[in-house]
Amino acid sequence: MPENKPRDYLVGVDLGGTKILAGVFTLKLELIGQAKISTKAHRGVETVIERIAHCIHEVVDECDLSLKQIKAVGVGAPGTVDAKLGKVIFAPNLPGWKEVPLQKELEKALDLPVVVGNDCNLCTLGVHEVELKGKPRHMVGMFVGTGIGGGLILNGELYLGHNLTAGEVGHMVVAADGPKCGCGNRGCLEAVASRTALFRKVQAAIKAGQKTVLTDLLGNDLNDMRSGDLRKAIRRGDKVVERIVLEAAAFLGVGVASLINIVNPEVFVLGGGVIEALEGEMMPTIIKTAQQHVMAGTLKGAEIRASHLGDNAGITGAAVIARPRSK
Amino acid sequence: MPENKPRDYLVGVDLGGTKILAGVFTLKLELIGQAKISTKAHRGVETVIERIAHCIHEVVDECDLSLKQIKAVGVGAPGTVDAKLGKVIFAPNLPGWKEVPLQKELEKALDLPVVVGNDCNLCTLGVHEVELKGKPRHMVGMFVGTGIGGGLILNGELYLGHNLTAGEVGHMVVAADGPKCGCGNRGCLEAVASRTALFRKVQAAIKAGQKTVLTDLLGNDLNDMRSGDLRKAIRRGDKVVERIVLEAAAFLGVGVASLINIVNPEVFVLGGGVIEALEGEMMPTIIKTAQQHVMAGTLKGAEIRASHLGDNAGITGAAVIARPRSK
Repeated sequence: MPENKPRDYLVGVDLGGTKILAGVFTLKLELIGQAKISTKAHRGVETVIERIAHCIHEVVDECDLSLKQIKAVGVGAPGTVDAKLGKVIFAPNLPGWKEVPLQKELEKALDLPVVVGNDCNLCTLGVHEVELKGKPRHMVGMFVGTGIGGGLILNGELYLGHNLTAGEVGHMVVAADGPKCGCGNRGCLEAVASRTALFRKVQAAIKAGQKTVLTDLLGNDLNDMRSGDLRKAIRRGDKVVERIVLEAAAFLGVGVASLINIVNPEVFVLGGGVIEALEGEMMPTIIKTAQQHVMAGTLKGAEIRASHLGDNAGITGAAVIARPRSK
Repeated sequence: MPENKPRDYLVGVDLGGTKILAGVFTLKLELIGQAKISTKAHRGVETVIERIAHCIHEVVDECDLSLKQIKAVGVGAPGTVDAKLGKVIFAPNLPGWKEVPLQKELEKALDLPVVVGNDCNLCTLGVHEVELKGKPRHMVGMFVGTGIGGGLILNGELYLGHNLTAGEVGHMVVAADGPKCGCGNRGCLEAVASRTALFRKVQAAIKAGQKTVLTDLLGNDLNDMRSGDLRKAIRRGDKVVERIVLEAAAFLGVGVASLINIVNPEVFVLGGGVIEALEGEMMPTIIKTAQQHVMAGTLKGAEIRASHLGDNAGITGAAVIARPRSK
């Protein structure tokens, strides 16, 4: 059976601040199994690397395979990644992650070729390659979660730029002198439209005495609030949450328009946990606002859409970068 | 003498809302002569095309050449240009310019090959090819005049995007709900940092009773105010004008940073009449603000600088696009 021949599979890993997701893919990028464990980032760099290796062992075993049947491993990491050196330069959500030689360490642990990339770059690549079948020649991806990241596919290829850091669409300033961003600046798209921004606005509204069903849903401790809770609240008629979510969607639409004016892609894809949970609530406003803000002629034959790869975008893109070395 | 052989020269034309500039270049892109006439845009499309042809005749004659010694003509037009079809789709500053087959009309008038492009795309190309000797692999150009336009050189080539409209960096929203822009939206970089924006702010300050030496320089009618007048005012100690110019420079710095976060170029070049007139006043603030707003690692080995091609950037880039067809 060809399926059991050695080295016929790829592993894609999405390393996040709270969880590690790993998937086994065929060489045709069909996902055949996945595993998820918590990152335990506070335990330090070494532990996290061990946990990535552990998660890979788990998912390979889950698929009734062995590491000997894996051609290569791709890993998406949250932060600045030097794909050529295989290093994570800086990952703000992973304590201690500065200049970490992730590729080398994992290759040692697994005895397999490893390739690393920026997580949202890889999400963009995964959506382009699998969901859109590699068709759009120019595409922008924007992924809205705890933060906002993205990636550019230009002339059919992932565009990395001079220091391999291109695609930081969440740190485009859309509201000069706006709220403070995690990056240290003010008014970044991430500071007004990420999940972090949404939760901060909800908490401010509650403090200001505005009524929301979220306190019925979650009690007074809103620290566990998820994007799905915002959807539930809106569906129960919560006008406060609805206003906050639509404001964020309008900011995202402005950001999408700016990127369309700059990059003029054929397809603009939005994804990430916030879009996945609130697609029906946010996408109409995002698209309408973007259409109002783009220059004449930029959207001809072009499309703004939500990705439906969900959590799998990152592991899919990670499998894509694992593929070329393994051919 | 090889200089006098037929077809050893290129003509580059910069079509502006108020003036037409044409230059004769050698095939090595050395500028050997130039001519300038007013556009007379209000007289309509046909007149403007006749005047472009006239200006080309003038400059060729000025260089003691004949049209028979010209290989090809490149033209930069202000607005959306379909370079493939040779059409100006829409030029907001040229009344009546919608779907104008500029290439075809000029080829008929001159009996020479003509290539057209967007003016600020061509300024970027001119700076890249001549001022920077084609070296940066990834570069962004931003040109600040009546409006703000730009261009992207990615992987060593002018990047045009899906509808050939890429590089509209002036219509990136930096101040959501900010002042109204000529494009119909609010808070575009052009609406807060172009010459038009500067003049509007100066006029508002005067109306609000603030004292500026501009009224001494120009009288009460400030309609003829130029960027150079702002420089003169600042050098005479005008704090009102200085504040307005530095505010615009800070907005430009925010826009530069956003573009660096998105595109991660090796070189970011600023040019255009406002930068040319106010380089010493604006560039330090632009660079400082950009450095404060970029993501860690994006500026490593990278540079933000002013172009010194001045008015010649556009005709130089126009000569560049004339070149490939003529080889």
